[in-house]
Amino acid sequence: MTQADRWMLPEGIAEILPADAKSIETLRRRLLDLYHSWGYELVIPPMVEFTDSLLIGMGRDIDLSTFKVTDQLSGRTLGIRADITPQAARIDAHSFPRAGANRLCYAGQVLHTRPRSVHGSRAPIQIGAELYGVDSLAADIEVISLMLETLQAAGIDRIHLDLGHVAIYRSLAEAAGLDAERREALFALLQSKAAADIHRWVADNVDDSRCAQWLRALPDLAGGSDCLARAQEVFANAPPALEAALADLQHCADALARRYPEVELFFDLSEVRGYDYETGLVFAAYTPGHGQALANGGRYNGIGSVFGRERPATGFSTDLVALNQLGKGFWQEGAAILAPESDDHTLWQAVEKLRREGEVVITALPDGAEGEVRARCDRELVQRGDDWLVQPRN
Amino acid sequence: MTQADRWMLPEGIAEILPADAKSIETLRRRLLDLYHSWGYELVIPPMVEFTDSLLIGMGRDIDLSTFKVTDQLSGRTLGIRADITPQAARIDAHSFPRAGANRLCYAGQVLHTRPRSVHGSRAPIQIGAELYGVDSLAADIEVISLMLETLQAAGIDRIHLDLGHVAIYRSLAEAAGLDAERREALFALLQSKAAADIHRWVADNVDDSRCAQWLRALPDLAGGSDCLARAQEVFANAPPALEAALADLQHCADALARRYPEVELFFDLSEVRGYDYETGLVFAAYTPGHGQALANGGRYNGIGSVFGRERPATGFSTDLVALNQLGKGFWQEGAAILAPESDDHTLWQAVEKLRREGEVVITALPDGAEGEVRARCDRELVQRGDDWLVQPRN
Repeated sequence: MTQADRWMLPEGIAEILPADAKSIETLRRRLLDLYHSWGYELVIPPMVEFTDSLLIGMGRDIDLSTFKVTDQLSGRTLGIRADITPQAARIDAHSFPRAGANRLCYAGQVLHTRPRSVHGSRAPIQIGAELYGVDSLAADIEVISLMLETLQAAGIDRIHLDLGHVAIYRSLAEAAGLDAERREALFALLQSKAAADIHRWVADNVDDSRCAQWLRALPDLAGGSDCLARAQEVFANAPPALEAALADLQHCADALARRYPEVELFFDLSEVRGYDYETGLVFAAYTPGHGQALANGGRYNGIGSVFGRERPATGFSTDLVALNQLGKGFWQEGAAILAPESDDHTLWQAVEKLRREGEVVITALPDGAEGEVRARCDRELVQRGDDWLVQPRN
Repeated sequence: MTQADRWMLPEGIAEILPADAKSIETLRRRLLDLYHSWGYELVIPPMVEFTDSLLIGMGRDIDLSTFKVTDQLSGRTLGIRADITPQAARIDAHSFPRAGANRLCYAGQVLHTRPRSVHGSRAPIQIGAELYGVDSLAADIEVISLMLETLQAAGIDRIHLDLGHVAIYRSLAEAAGLDAERREALFALLQSKAAADIHRWVADNVDDSRCAQWLRALPDLAGGSDCLARAQEVFANAPPALEAALADLQHCADALARRYPEVELFFDLSEVRGYDYETGLVFAAYTPGHGQALANGGRYNGIGSVFGRERPATGFSTDLVALNQLGKGFWQEGAAILAPESDDHTLWQAVEKLRREGEVVITALPDGAEGEVRARCDRELVQRGDDWLVQPRN
């Protein structure tokens, strides 16, 4: 065992040192205060739960992402949370049930067994908000608005919002009469966005010519505001669920454009992210020059049913560490006051008074041990008669 | 698998619901701001590390308390932190080294395999501060002062401070020439505070009559301010290290009594808590009617040596969840304003303005879905001509 082995951190798991930590803490407070002003109430779920509670129909990815340990008290398997959303859903369903809307928010470290991208983090600080109990578009629009304000509060100037709706793929797969295995295959192809492969697969697997035409058109239906107009033409006489999804997208886009004209809107009708648990509108926010989504979310009605209470649900989350890396620093360390080493009780009283007034006061320690910290102090406490005065340091 | 199995939480692991969560968040901010005003800088260590970094001479208890998982990327063993202190020591030794004093603070969930007391929590939210690089009593006094102010900021009116010094037992064991096995045995007896057993053991194991007398006296040397005076008599001509420890205790007690005359001071010279890694003054704070220590800490010089940099160190920590349970609630939910369901853009602007001014504005959702939330709103936005006005609700 070398010393380097001892101080090395696992790959993708970072510690956060003072300058970044204070910046992240500042952003964290700003965002939780924002959620509070919208009526979202903070919950603090635990770092671990029984896997039976954590892995509730949120898809296979979350299972593979979750570290598991055995609980010495119950003998059951515990998971270290890889996502706080299922914990919020459990709280809405059981511990903190409400008759109508339930607005919850949270912030905390999560852990992934493997990074989700090359050089990605395995230990994001997830912050987000969830709105339960309301199955109307007004709820989706509220949650997307709050996501956009989250990014704006984090100083992200240029935001691209991607909107999709899983009912589009779902209703087409149904109309084409695809069985589970084929749905899975087409799902994988759509995720890879490989148009030629999709055309070939559709030719081999879908008999109904109208359905085949719709499915072939899907990968091209992505882009700016003209995308929905093109979709209206392509999907004339498509299943009602698909038409309703298109209307939802249009309504949502219109509302968001009025509220946030500076945000660029994009649509991706073949978006299938989270298809195994999302049930309606899905959305993700990007900024130019940064490949990964900064924040994302969607509607996931029905998760609560495993806890005995099926509830409409929509929400979003983001990563404070990633936002802080993109941002320009949410905290500038201010100057401090140096207090000399002394047992004088009037000095102690002067120091405490300054701290209560919001100053940072650092006490000198024997042998100049405050060392580098001294450089931060632009002022010092100096005794004049019975008083201690703050004076500039040379 | 029943639904109850799914929503049950593991024993000793709690989720924190809105009223408590907001109260804990308020206290957390208050304490981190306090530490900031003393020059302590925030760090955010990760939830997991290699066990080689986490279990560094902090004693056997911490090893048994730590959940372990295998890292899929390195094949090495990871520990879920049971204590943030070793992480802070690693940061001081390696990632954020300073020539002189290094003041760090932190707040985060930790996890224990087993509760440390009956019905105790396995998932405290540890908050604390550590002062590295300074081996003088001034540093111990600073850290104990900050611990006392932590409890005062948490609204704890009556504080009992217990002071001890591990050099007392250590120097007596050395003077008596006890080998490792016997030190371990006497250590166990002192922890149990069983005076009769200690007397019997000393008679059987310690030949030097002066040493035997000192060791027999140890369990009785606990109590208020007279305790140190009695110790001066008992330990006349004791090893110099013991006399120095008594002088340190006296100096520390005097300084703290001047600063915090309202805090009751107690001494326990047979205190051996943390003997396997603490090296000097140890301290714990209690409040009447609550059996467990509310906060504790001590000097643990030398921990950094496993990271290649031996540094003086002292610090303390406490549990935000426990403090919140004792406190009277650090947050009172205020009233909110209800905004009607409407696409009107002037309403949206009025809502956003109120939120920026610090109000909580909750938007009504279709079908009265805001439900129970409505009860929290004592005012509402009402349209008068082109304006939206805030009016009391009936």
